[in-house]
Amino acid sequence: MNASELHEESIVIDGLVIAKWDRALFEDMRRGGITAANCTVSVWEGFQNTVNNISAMNQLIDDNSDLILKVTCTDDIRRAKAQGKTGVMMGFQNAHAYEDQIGYVQVFKDLGIGIVQMCYNTQNLVGTGCYERDGGLSGFGHEIVAEMNRVGVMCDLSHVGAKTSQEVILASKKPVCYSHCLPSGLKDHPRNKSDQDLKFIADHGGFVGVTMFAPFLKNGIHSSIEDYVEAIEYIYNLVGEDQIGIGTDFTQGQDEAFFEWLTHDKGYARRLTRFGEIINPEGIRTLGEFPNLTDALLRRGFSERQVSKIMGENWVRVLADVWGE
Amino acid sequence: MNASELHEESIVIDGLVIAKWDRALFEDMRRGGITAANCTVSVWEGFQNTVNNISAMNQLIDDNSDLILKVTCTDDIRRAKAQGKTGVMMGFQNAHAYEDQIGYVQVFKDLGIGIVQMCYNTQNLVGTGCYERDGGLSGFGHEIVAEMNRVGVMCDLSHVGAKTSQEVILASKKPVCYSHCLPSGLKDHPRNKSDQDLKFIADHGGFVGVTMFAPFLKNGIHSSIEDYVEAIEYIYNLVGEDQIGIGTDFTQGQDEAFFEWLTHDKGYARRLTRFGEIINPEGIRTLGEFPNLTDALLRRGFSERQVSKIMGENWVRVLADVWGE
Repeated sequence: MNASELHEESIVIDGLVIAKWDRALFEDMRRGGITAANCTVSVWEGFQNTVNNISAMNQLIDDNSDLILKVTCTDDIRRAKAQGKTGVMMGFQNAHAYEDQIGYVQVFKDLGIGIVQMCYNTQNLVGTGCYERDGGLSGFGHEIVAEMNRVGVMCDLSHVGAKTSQEVILASKKPVCYSHCLPSGLKDHPRNKSDQDLKFIADHGGFVGVTMFAPFLKNGIHSSIEDYVEAIEYIYNLVGEDQIGIGTDFTQGQDEAFFEWLTHDKGYARRLTRFGEIINPEGIRTLGEFPNLTDALLRRGFSERQVSKIMGENWVRVLADVWGE
Repeated sequence: MNASELHEESIVIDGLVIAKWDRALFEDMRRGGITAANCTVSVWEGFQNTVNNISAMNQLIDDNSDLILKVTCTDDIRRAKAQGKTGVMMGFQNAHAYEDQIGYVQVFKDLGIGIVQMCYNTQNLVGTGCYERDGGLSGFGHEIVAEMNRVGVMCDLSHVGAKTSQEVILASKKPVCYSHCLPSGLKDHPRNKSDQDLKFIADHGGFVGVTMFAPFLKNGIHSSIEDYVEAIEYIYNLVGEDQIGIGTDFTQGQDEAFFEWLTHDKGYARRLTRFGEIINPEGIRTLGEFPNLTDALLRRGFSERQVSKIMGENWVRVLADVWGE
């Protein structure tokens, strides 16, 4: 089977996209053969603004039902594959939208939220992000993890501090993930995960999605898809072939105002990061170029079976485990 | 001058009351000769419910204007004294009501909030309370402290963890306080402050209000006003005569449902404390018995000048310093 056929046949999951949601984007996702993606609908927003974002996404899904459908269980992913559509898995990059209400875990699950990152870069009621001193998982955080386990929401730790991450990994009775991360073994950065972190999550049944966000790659904005595949291989060698997947972190279509919002605490307070120009790795500059990734993995020497697992099968298995359906 | 005359003449400040706000209570405050009190209008409430509490208090102040008036500057305290009324200083026991908005510090100051405790027992966006592991003052917390300094809101650390407290003391350019605390030198308890803590705040220009909350006193619910005065003297010996005052923590009129709300994280989540029956020390069981405190302090050997300072003058001076008016 050639790369194009394999990509066509595979279930392709992108574990993290935070793009500008519009028809052009969904068309590009179809061009890229993406079966489903974890689509961020909350970062700094509180409860009600997050509900508004979900409502807007519901409308987009209705308006573009020839291209996309809503995913709330793994059957929906298979349905997307069968119908040649892209499944939208709505997710949060911050537990902030839960505010102080444990009951909102169920409320948001009912609205379709199945993956939630515990913290985004800084401290919230649950724990602390990776850009400030990390005091670990709070008492309330322990209650939130238990409720996410009960309800069936995956804990994402990508932007979470090392101490809080470790404590979530130990507290959770279901697999947790770094949905989109890179190894600090290839580039030292507060957002990248150490070999020890990556082994720790894998040893506890967790999952690692690999991002291609250029500032965290060894060659920065001069990276190519080969650098991305090098990072995938690096993590593959640490966690094995069953607990690894893709989580690109595509921000396609977002403007400068969005990045200003994203890179300040709470969306407006102190600046946390300054990435300068962001250029995605050559060969995978847009979601539409996703087939190149299957090709590059095969060229790197991964078997067809391994590529299918990395490109999406592993994600589907772990989501079924967490969601229970 | 006898005790009764001294009390009558003094400005009497209670640095923390969290009572059931109604006319009967305000009548008892008048009976107690209280010139002004820091009246809690937010603990677990978010922004809007806190505004609703302030609105309800505004209505009570209007309805009982023969007994009470609103205090937003120290001139209002002197006006209350002159008019024979009790001044209501509205305060928070948790920065939670600021939510994620630094701008709410000014908004609430405009609504009359001049004293805010950074955390109540557990972790919030600012730092951590005294009933869980304390990761210290967050980055956002540093911004909130700076804004409270700028706007003129006193940082209260009574229910705050030791690490967060120390970092607020160091970060604040204005005096901060433990508005209501007891020394762990007399009874070891997570809510009580060590000699080191008490010296640290005093050495940095801060202020200590002494509570009579029975479960934290050496003799528990069998305490008398003498035990309270012993605690005042203990702290007096550590911090000197200018940085000490009263902060009773009266919960007068509150029912069981209130205590259930208060003793659970967020008002409903895990239980944090269980005090059982709370009986205030004999001799100061109600706000109306406040004159007994002046008497007991005199009997303990404090001079009239020292008693006036402890009973309220010190509070007025430090509030003027923080509020700038």
